[in-house]
Amino acid sequence: MFAVSIWPRGLEVNAVAAKALTDGGTSLDAIEAALRFSEDDIGDPSTGWGGLPNSVGEVELDAAIMFGPTAQAGAVGALRDTRYAISVARRVMEKTPHLLLVGEGAKAFARGEGFSDFALLTSESRRRWEEWRSKSAHGERGAHDTMGTVAIDQRGQLAVGVTTSGTPFKQPGRVGDSPILGAGLYCDQGVGAALATGVGEEAMRICATFLVVELMRRGEEPESACRHTLDRLLKTYPPAAQKQLGLAALRTDGIPGGASLKPGFAYAYFDGKENRLFPVDSLAA
Amino acid sequence: MFAVSIWPRGLEVNAVAAKALTDGGTSLDAIEAALRFSEDDIGDPSTGWGGLPNSVGEVELDAAIMFGPTAQAGAVGALRDTRYAISVARRVMEKTPHLLLVGEGAKAFARGEGFSDFALLTSESRRRWEEWRSKSAHGERGAHDTMGTVAIDQRGQLAVGVTTSGTPFKQPGRVGDSPILGAGLYCDQGVGAALATGVGEEAMRICATFLVVELMRRGEEPESACRHTLDRLLKTYPPAAQKQLGLAALRTDGIPGGASLKPGFAYAYFDGKENRLFPVDSLAA
Repeated sequence: MFAVSIWPRGLEVNAVAAKALTDGGTSLDAIEAALRFSEDDIGDPSTGWGGLPNSVGEVELDAAIMFGPTAQAGAVGALRDTRYAISVARRVMEKTPHLLLVGEGAKAFARGEGFSDFALLTSESRRRWEEWRSKSAHGERGAHDTMGTVAIDQRGQLAVGVTTSGTPFKQPGRVGDSPILGAGLYCDQGVGAALATGVGEEAMRICATFLVVELMRRGEEPESACRHTLDRLLKTYPPAAQKQLGLAALRTDGIPGGASLKPGFAYAYFDGKENRLFPVDSLAA
Repeated sequence: MFAVSIWPRGLEVNAVAAKALTDGGTSLDAIEAALRFSEDDIGDPSTGWGGLPNSVGEVELDAAIMFGPTAQAGAVGALRDTRYAISVARRVMEKTPHLLLVGEGAKAFARGEGFSDFALLTSESRRRWEEWRSKSAHGERGAHDTMGTVAIDQRGQLAVGVTTSGTPFKQPGRVGDSPILGAGLYCDQGVGAALATGVGEEAMRICATFLVVELMRRGEEPESACRHTLDRLLKTYPPAAQKQLGLAALRTDGIPGGASLKPGFAYAYFDGKENRLFPVDSLAA
């Protein structure tokens, strides 16, 4: 049993995954429970209920889940008015031949699966949107943030999931790295899994999590795989040096690692007994 | 000057790219011209005008473009009522900080950029949809198909683009591999580019075009890189053996290659003088 969740606030999220795993739940159940906990946290401006809206004041959610043993996956992009994007992503995996549903189609699918309409904007997230709008229609969009969890259950089954409301005040319809396999998340049962956070476009540009897993496949340690992936980004697209991208990985044998372009990134790691926060070295450090 | 376009009908599309390159156009211009030609072909049921609609009779387009020298890219998913998805994808690259816009947001962006409403359904594509619907709401969805082009211009600049109406009669909101960097298309100026077609979900599951480019980076020939990527898919997800996935690659030095799971795939190759069709060996052969 192992679990990794990203950012300092990932400590609480990881505790939810750890409890599910300890109780005998599958890695998929642990991830869904952990990310629903994040989506339900109205104090968290980066996922689900209370997540910051797009430029027109609509919350649009991206989420995905992938299961190692079968290489099955499901994802949603730009999903509105729905409380648990991660659960809808899981239904996409379980009930459709597709991997990604977006926009109105994703919402219609969720309704068909019994997810009811839910108002994701809170008084606080509305206030922050109005503040942003009053300052400048083209102003700073603020921090980019995602919640993601990797879990290995008692049977050794690997799974990974992510959920986000995306870049604050983003262009309507913008989809970031979170629902994209190999960008925001990836796993391979024989190797391990990886998560990305930060400016999603930079993870998408180099298939960051796929590359982390690929480097681990060739024998690199998780931390080294994350650092070398950031090196690749800087070589491929030098302007990324001005942005944040954080990567965390968990190898199938339970060894974690992480790296980020800028300081401030960290991951929570549950080793089967304890759940602790590990600050990550940034390339800028 | 080199260009590769996929499928037998790619020969005509590639000729458009070849002419643009010969006339001194950039690789981006060549790709946009070639794929607009495909989108305008109402006899082609897999792209743009005349492309087959989703299960509710709406045509939803996916397209993307990526430019080697700058590693910039743009894409649209589930875009309705718009004639040239590839041109909208190029505008996403040129005018936004984002890589992917979907659904209503993508359509609103296109309208803001001056793309007017356009009825994509033709009498023939409507007839085929009604025929499909009358047979079974859950019946065979038919062949999966995408048009894609890689080009290297007179200055040696690499670019790649894809456009598709997606799996015929797909679930509304389904986005396939085409607008996903590393799945439907990828390029790296120092290495080469790759294109995918077939069941998009299988390209997404293993970041197929990113992996092709990654294998070429490590010295594999384009054809071998394509074959080994298909091997990886079959190892990762054995049910893919029942599906079609076709891959084509063009190395920066102008050497092409391809491979597919099932017979019938081919690519057109323009070597700077001649434009010819090359059948591809399938793993099933």
